[in-house]
Amino acid sequence: MAKVNDNYLKLPGSYLFSTIARKVREYTEAHPEARIIRLGIGDVTQPLAEEIVDTLHKAVDEMGRAETFRGYAPDLGYDFLRNVIAKKDYGERGCDISADEIFISDGAKCDCGNIQEIFSLENRIAVCDPVYPVYVDSNVMAGRTGAYDPEKERFGNVIYLPCLEANGFLPEIPEEVPDLIYLCFPNNPTGAVMKRSALQEWVDYANKNHSVILFDAAYEAYITEEDVPHSIYECEGARTCAIEFRSFSKTAGFTGLRLGFTVIPKELEADGVKLHGLWARRHGTKYNGAPYIVQRAGEAVYSDRGREQIREQIAYYRGNAECILKGLRAAGYSVSGGVNAPYIWLKTPDHMTSWEFFDHLLEKANIVGTPGSGFGPGGEHYFRLTAFGSRENTLEAVERFKKL
Amino acid sequence: MAKVNDNYLKLPGSYLFSTIARKVREYTEAHPEARIIRLGIGDVTQPLAEEIVDTLHKAVDEMGRAETFRGYAPDLGYDFLRNVIAKKDYGERGCDISADEIFISDGAKCDCGNIQEIFSLENRIAVCDPVYPVYVDSNVMAGRTGAYDPEKERFGNVIYLPCLEANGFLPEIPEEVPDLIYLCFPNNPTGAVMKRSALQEWVDYANKNHSVILFDAAYEAYITEEDVPHSIYECEGARTCAIEFRSFSKTAGFTGLRLGFTVIPKELEADGVKLHGLWARRHGTKYNGAPYIVQRAGEAVYSDRGREQIREQIAYYRGNAECILKGLRAAGYSVSGGVNAPYIWLKTPDHMTSWEFFDHLLEKANIVGTPGSGFGPGGEHYFRLTAFGSRENTLEAVERFKKL
Repeated sequence: MAKVNDNYLKLPGSYLFSTIARKVREYTEAHPEARIIRLGIGDVTQPLAEEIVDTLHKAVDEMGRAETFRGYAPDLGYDFLRNVIAKKDYGERGCDISADEIFISDGAKCDCGNIQEIFSLENRIAVCDPVYPVYVDSNVMAGRTGAYDPEKERFGNVIYLPCLEANGFLPEIPEEVPDLIYLCFPNNPTGAVMKRSALQEWVDYANKNHSVILFDAAYEAYITEEDVPHSIYECEGARTCAIEFRSFSKTAGFTGLRLGFTVIPKELEADGVKLHGLWARRHGTKYNGAPYIVQRAGEAVYSDRGREQIREQIAYYRGNAECILKGLRAAGYSVSGGVNAPYIWLKTPDHMTSWEFFDHLLEKANIVGTPGSGFGPGGEHYFRLTAFGSRENTLEAVERFKKL
Repeated sequence: MAKVNDNYLKLPGSYLFSTIARKVREYTEAHPEARIIRLGIGDVTQPLAEEIVDTLHKAVDEMGRAETFRGYAPDLGYDFLRNVIAKKDYGERGCDISADEIFISDGAKCDCGNIQEIFSLENRIAVCDPVYPVYVDSNVMAGRTGAYDPEKERFGNVIYLPCLEANGFLPEIPEEVPDLIYLCFPNNPTGAVMKRSALQEWVDYANKNHSVILFDAAYEAYITEEDVPHSIYECEGARTCAIEFRSFSKTAGFTGLRLGFTVIPKELEADGVKLHGLWARRHGTKYNGAPYIVQRAGEAVYSDRGREQIREQIAYYRGNAECILKGLRAAGYSVSGGVNAPYIWLKTPDHMTSWEFFDHLLEKANIVGTPGSGFGPGGEHYFRLTAFGSRENTLEAVERFKKL
């Protein structure tokens, strides 16, 4: 008799963004006249840059001619893309990463969700609290955690690293030593960043304890300050303790195109086994490459014209972040993030819970944000706003906040 | 200390197609003058149909305009695609499958590899022998099998269903009852098909024993005979025991575009738990949707113009299969498959092993095929040829076979 993986049954309720979508749908059905402004889910709104569009058209034409048609992509990605990433994202920042250490995929969410597979079920994970739900949920589904405790809103056998106002929303070295440490900076959801010296401490700690850091750098393009690292490989010794995830979603508006990559240095090992070969094996067995046309679009992101147009897009979203940050501060809210990140982390007023504030904001101002508690109990009484709306909507939202 | 998932270490050597690629690379480096004909890996060679190319261009333009830009796709796929699949692939064949039972993905390989995740590690799998390696390897990596026995060339705790000349390359009901049964018809690698009455027996068996059939129908577009089912849902009772995988790769030349889907009927359950919700949860947590432009291209496959153009492509590949089948038979080879499938299954001459014949064919005729033993010990002394080459190359390969 077939049985299910009952680890799935440990997951309480539905995925955060599905719940938000349902609540918004119900509200708009009841109030069809409401003009909802969505600053909730981290989805971009600007169209693809011209250079990306032009490149996609060219690649589509290639697929339509026998001489230039491309079938299965190489498992780990086309060399043209791996080479340009190694050069521009790493070489030019002084990071020693070679093209064959870069694994192209259809996005950082998939990679962040799948990476745990190559590790033992006995490994204990550490995550920030609040945290992007994928890190925890993918480990729950694999059976690497204990049961969910609805009182504590936490899973057993997970080391939670509280990121609160008191510690500047940055995790502190835990008492127990974790085997796998998920870090995401610039952070989703808080927008906090870790300076190079602080990240170096984590790298040293991981090397000393033979832990592996799973570093999600999906938001690096939003960094504006000098001493904030774009890559964990800017830290000494990271090649022997860290895997890095990158995404084109927030960098170049690829949320609907799907492209990302994972970096695994060749010398990185766990208990004497090289991780590079295991991830290559997973790619070869359970994945079939990102579409050729999308990989060409990814390459265009690094061209001079592509870079220029994408910088403008990011500047636009940064401008939104600044509007929200300044506007909400002026209106008396307590806010952080938004300087090196597209996320603004807002303390709910009047000690409202995150979901109370969600309902309040939806009903009174027709604004959709993301309840902080959806990212873990450390996010309770907080609320995430994103800078990915249009400028017009962002300004309008700030005005509505002021009137609230 | 981080440890690896040591189930990965049970996998012997590298993935079949990587080994072939290495051997061919080494040969061409040593013999740069050789004109190699590749009838090995099942990759298509015809360019995308005009209707698909036109649709991709239109969708790319939409992505370049703010009013029509699309960010994250719905987790489970766009309704426009799910609806047309439900209607054309199922409704029109008399199968009762609704749009919300269809999960769009980036390909059947990923889905076939990932599906095992929603089942218990205690479940015992049955696979045909020979078999597409992904079914077994993904279960090995998850820890659902025992160790690899190099003598038997088999993993422990797997029920192998021999598919040999004696049984017409069709699996027989095993003595021990499996929990999960992988079936792929039209079959990769043998090209054999299962008639409706034979598949009905498996459906009845699965329902009786509360097993789940994982039915890979990636090659259904190549079926030419009337009593061969295109979908397992043509069998009575399949809704309570079967999951089906479909691909656009071999149907419409999407190997380099990446699109497929999985069907899970809402009433299908294992030990009282509905599988539909578990797979939706997996999609929501570890996947982020297929690209909008690719989903639009998938929709175009079902338009009148798209269908017509794609029928021509499939007819072209079918013509190749016929050439190989007739040519090799005339040359005295023992061959099967190729009538309802793009694969021809060839018995090696002079009792050569599959890899001996691979080397022989590469060196003496500069033809690349796939060694049958790469699909399991039941494939030893067999060889797979594919119909996906150009007509010119296929005819030339047949001539070379005749001279061999």
